[in-house]
Amino acid sequence: MPVQKTVTLGLLQHACLADPKANLAKALVLTEEAAKRGAQIICTQEMFRSQYFCQSEDHANFALAESIPDGPSTVAFRKLAKKHGVVVIASLFEKRASGLYHNTAVIIDADGSVLGLYRKMHIPDDPLFYEKFYFTPGDTGFRAWDTKFGRIGVLICWDQWYPEAARLTAMQGAEILFYPTAIGWHPSEKAEYGVNQHGAWETIQRSHAVANGCYVAAINRVGHEKIKGVGGDGLEFWGQSFVAGTSGQILAKASVKEEEVMLVDVDLSKVDVTRTHWPFLRDRRIDAYGDLTRRFID
Amino acid sequence: MPVQKTVTLGLLQHACLADPKANLAKALVLTEEAAKRGAQIICTQEMFRSQYFCQSEDHANFALAESIPDGPSTVAFRKLAKKHGVVVIASLFEKRASGLYHNTAVIIDADGSVLGLYRKMHIPDDPLFYEKFYFTPGDTGFRAWDTKFGRIGVLICWDQWYPEAARLTAMQGAEILFYPTAIGWHPSEKAEYGVNQHGAWETIQRSHAVANGCYVAAINRVGHEKIKGVGGDGLEFWGQSFVAGTSGQILAKASVKEEEVMLVDVDLSKVDVTRTHWPFLRDRRIDAYGDLTRRFID
Repeated sequence: MPVQKTVTLGLLQHACLADPKANLAKALVLTEEAAKRGAQIICTQEMFRSQYFCQSEDHANFALAESIPDGPSTVAFRKLAKKHGVVVIASLFEKRASGLYHNTAVIIDADGSVLGLYRKMHIPDDPLFYEKFYFTPGDTGFRAWDTKFGRIGVLICWDQWYPEAARLTAMQGAEILFYPTAIGWHPSEKAEYGVNQHGAWETIQRSHAVANGCYVAAINRVGHEKIKGVGGDGLEFWGQSFVAGTSGQILAKASVKEEEVMLVDVDLSKVDVTRTHWPFLRDRRIDAYGDLTRRFID
Repeated sequence: MPVQKTVTLGLLQHACLADPKANLAKALVLTEEAAKRGAQIICTQEMFRSQYFCQSEDHANFALAESIPDGPSTVAFRKLAKKHGVVVIASLFEKRASGLYHNTAVIIDADGSVLGLYRKMHIPDDPLFYEKFYFTPGDTGFRAWDTKFGRIGVLICWDQWYPEAARLTAMQGAEILFYPTAIGWHPSEKAEYGVNQHGAWETIQRSHAVANGCYVAAINRVGHEKIKGVGGDGLEFWGQSFVAGTSGQILAKASVKEEEVMLVDVDLSKVDVTRTHWPFLRDRRIDAYGDLTRRFID
């Protein structure tokens, strides 16, 4: 048997207030708590610094964006990462240039250095999730980084529905896929569709662990957010952040409504064991996959 | 709302005896039963005509193969399909030429005509699943067919672990993906790994329904098969054939051990509804998927 290589993941599931400074302060407190409890790779939920402002298309919201690495969030997390010797994945609203904004994750190594960033590649646009208005589709492609505690990949929310994204990240050696997320129910739909919607979300991400023999960590927010000035009944984020093992089994799962710092131990040596016993990578028919770059085969 | 378009699927889950003629006779009886009860698209489990002979590498087993469409199975199913006006998907061990064998599904339309065939593209080779010895990897690529009752795709067992295969089939318009399967537990591993193994299998196939907003039908065998002349304790097929809806939810699931003709109604208009409300196909980043044809990105 290979030597165990246990890493402790820290998932920060929380609610967000209207004030970005308060949200950043909260995320920093939770990060510190996670680090003190032993977390080694800590990941925020998607755009933890704001309420989910994409519920409307409002130019004023662009003021919520910050630059990377000079903005306040990256500066603060770098300091904390260095202080505690932990890896931090922070999901931010990035202002790259005037009129050019991204939904971006910054990956900070345990020495406080910025390893790189990932700009969300798949951008949704659906009622109350008007992301195409705000976020330019990423130009980073799919990436993986060697952190102090393991090789990881980061994808963001809507990316989670695309097996292609998980595959291309795992093919770069990522042993854990992190998915900072902000997903919830439309309250009016919850009774009829809620179970299937959440089930689909959990299932597809567990399947990325299965297909690639790697770990998957999904970090979602909680809370019912009704944005000031936006009509309707808002979004009820469904929490339930989780970590899936290399066979897609749920290793740990947070609650629907509570704020939680969830610590989960994962043994990275299981990636090798799983892929040896379920050698899916061996048998991919790469000679027959060319049409995956087509829109449709018609 | 779009007009309902309900189709009744018939999944044939059964055990297999050593005698191929008895297995074919049984499958024909079950097909007839399914048709009489109202099934419109009927699918066998993988290589229903034999016990799972790939538990050893034995040249004598090539004698189990038959040609398509002239072999006894295709001839018999064509007759039944025409008689009852049903579509039949039959999973067969195909002898294509001397020394050239495939794990093949033949798709027969409701008028008894052969619509086409699919030759298993991904071939496993693991303890007691020595398929690479028997089956030449398919050269059909991934396909879809317009049957009388809907546009379908067929993939076979090990293919189920590959999101690429499901995607490429759905991208040709398939609204139902059928997976004839023969998968089970090594009895010695069942206690420790059985739950996760089955969970991974069900999860990944449900995820194909999620990712593509289509239906998935998996048809597996039951029974504990110890092949004559092969040591060890054989394979315990785990049954649990199922149909997943367009959000990946389980619509129906067969038992672990019983033979069953499972009839499941699916409404094909839901494919359109689901894909409109969860428009994953809209946002695929086909400009960034080119590396999917690589073995690994290193």
